[in-house]
This record gives sequence, structure tokens and C-alpha cells, in this order.
Amino acid sequence: MGKKIAFILSGCGVKDGSEIHEAVAALIALDRAGYEVIFAAPDVEQAATVDHRTASAESITRNTLKESARIARGNILPLSELRSEDYDAVMFPGGFGAALTLCSFAVDGPECSVNPEVESLINEALQSGKPIAAMCIAPVILARTIPGAKLTIGSHPETADAISAMGAVHVNCPVNESVVDLERKLVTTPAYMLASGPAEVYEGALSMVEELGRLF
Amino acid sequence: MGKKIAFILSGCGVKDGSEIHEAVAALIALDRAGYEVIFAAPDVEQAATVDHRTASAESITRNTLKESARIARGNILPLSELRSEDYDAVMFPGGFGAALTLCSFAVDGPECSVNPEVESLINEALQSGKPIAAMCIAPVILARTIPGAKLTIGSHPETADAISAMGAVHVNCPVNESVVDLERKLVTTPAYMLASGPAEVYEGALSMVEELGRLF
Repeated sequence: MGKKIAFILSGCGVKDGSEIHEAVAALIALDRAGYEVIFAAPDVEQAATVDHRTASAESITRNTLKESARIARGNILPLSELRSEDYDAVMFPGGFGAALTLCSFAVDGPECSVNPEVESLINEALQSGKPIAAMCIAPVILARTIPGAKLTIGSHPETADAISAMGAVHVNCPVNESVVDLERKLVTTPAYMLASGPAEVYEGALSMVEELGRLF
Repeated sequence: MGKKIAFILSGCGVKDGSEIHEAVAALIALDRAGYEVIFAAPDVEQAATVDHRTASAESITRNTLKESARIARGNILPLSELRSEDYDAVMFPGGFGAALTLCSFAVDGPECSVNPEVESLINEALQSGKPIAAMCIAPVILARTIPGAKLTIGSHPETADAISAMGAVHVNCPVNESVVDLERKLVTTPAYMLASGPAEVYEGALSMVEELGRLF
């Protein structure tokens, strides 16, 4: 069996959950490279539910784990049940769920809090020397959790400034490449922070998975 | 601009809507080949809403167009508003939504009915010589609508028999290839009817998009 990737979802859809194109582009790249994927998500209510056609917030609430199961095709663990022996590396696709539910960056900016289970996972991966990869806006979770982390969200000035304000180091990066923090074993790629469509997202995902393989 | 593909969704998730990996694999393949995608879905209640973790039906209803907008990242037309000049070809990803909401095959088998807007779209494409592509279980819609259609759903015996019962011609096909009906300009690929993971789905999508390009 290939190495196991804990793939952390935050719902299903760019405006309130995991960005679907990013998640699947990463899954194709991982599968082609022979990795096994273990899906997990926090079993909490989504911080928001958004009508993706109108972009307006809805009054209903949806459960993060249950909606994430749509991308996972059913086979997904509550994040609280993910154990250290279940994975060799961690990956976060983007989407607003990463900045609304996995952390509160979309609302609180550099003062954001991180979901406690997500924070524990990141700290455990760091302490055991396991690589962590993140796409699009999800690197803000790493910026908030890992002092001095070197990472990218592409080249968006305000978000890059917010990352610096959290004590991390932002590096501009083109859409088809990744930024690697060798010391902390982090790989990040801009995805839809810069991509004009799914083909560019996939190029970034291929780069991220290739760089990830060098960190084991 | 490249040729325009009317990409017809049926919700968001394999168990009650469009299969997410199939949809995105096709979108990456189309984008790489330079096609423009026009998303559309019927503005109707989904025939079912399923908890993807437990696979049990839920009592809530969801709207097909609204949920499909998650895969489309917001930019999607009600199928009733899609005009002939908007597209050069039609594509249907799979997922149970194709067999529950776009047609009733999952419930009624060979006696199934097809959503009237979907049926009109297929007939219009046929009459104007525009190619139609379909993945996974979605070819049953073509089997029901197009007399004598040559197509594949992989090699599943009962589904192949049902396709024959509808007057179409089933051809077994491996996961990384497609079946082409040159006379009717149809391309079909098995996707998750056979695929063991997203990389195989992507190989089938690349094959489908390549064959589609030969039909213009």
C-alpha cells in the first residue's frame, strides 16, 4: 500500500465548504501517484450555508461531516476518530469552509481561531515529522497554527499581509507551482486564489503532490 | 474561444446528484482541451436527498439547480433557459441524480421516463448534429431517448440488459476507454461503473473528451 493521506474536508462547495474542483484535482493527483486517501472532517455544524447560485446565506444549517461525505463518496471519519497511525501526511483543499469552519479567518482575519481538532491534528503531524499540504485559502490555518511557517496563497496582497501578521512568511507563487517549507515539511499551492479554471487547479495539485513526495 | 459544452448536472453528490469526481475529471479534461463549459440543470426538486455517510434517504428536499451550482461554482443556467446557440455539444456526468432526477431509471428500469427538458435538449442536439457525451450511468438517458444508440456503461450485466431492452446497443468497454456511436455522434465512458478511484475516472474522461473532439 502507498502512504496514507489524511484528507481534511470542510463541507462540499466553494462558498461554504471544500472547493470541489480543488479537492478532486488533488484526489486525482494523489491516486495517480499511488497514495491512499483517508477522508476526515469535523462533526460540527458548518459556520455558514450559502446558496451557490445567488451567493446569499441561507437560514438552514448543514453538518460539515455529512456534507463532506459527498466528496468522499461516503467513506469518511469524524476528525475526532482519526488516529496518528491512520496517516503519513495531511492535506487541506481550499474553499470558504476552510476559512469559516476549520478556522475563522474569513470573519476574524489574523485574530482567527482554529477548530480544536484541526489544531491538534496539525500539532501532532508537526511533532511526528509528517508533511502537511494545503491549497488556496487553507494555508491560513497553517499560518495561524505554525509559528514562522513559509507558505503561499498565490499573490493576493491583503491575504498575504494577514499571513505576515500571524507570524508566518508569505511567498508569492504562480498557479502551477508550490511553495515548500523544508524545515516544517509544508507544501502549499495557490489553486483558485489564482487559477482561471480547473486545468490550472490540476497543474497546481500535481506540483503539490510531487513536492509532498519529496518530504517523506 | 473554444467550442462550448452544455454540461448538464443533476445535483451534487454520487448518491442523489452528479458524481463529483466524474464531473470534475471531465471539467479538467475539457479545460485542458480548450473547451468552454456552460453549466445547466433542471430547476426541479431532486427525486431524493441521501445522507452520503449513512446512505439513508432524508426527509428534506433539495433543489437540483441549486445543489448543482456547488459543482459549477455558482455560474449555472436553469436548463429551460439554455438555448441552441449556447452550445456545440452536450455532456452528462454520472451519479444517481442522472438516474433519479434526469430520468427515472433507478426506480423504473427500462420503462423509465426522462425529464422533459433533458429529452428536448437531447432531441435538439441530435437534430442539429451536435455530439453528446455521457459517463457512468448517464448513458441510460441516451438509451431511453435515442433509438438504436450504441453506448456503454462498462460491463454490468443487468444494466447492459436493461439498455438492450430500451432498444439501444450495449458495448462492453474498459474504464480508460470510450465507446463512440459515429452515426449519432455519441461518446460514452464507464467511469465509476468500473473505476477503482479518481485516477481511472480521469483516464476515462480524457478518452471521452478526445473522442468528442473527433465528432465536430
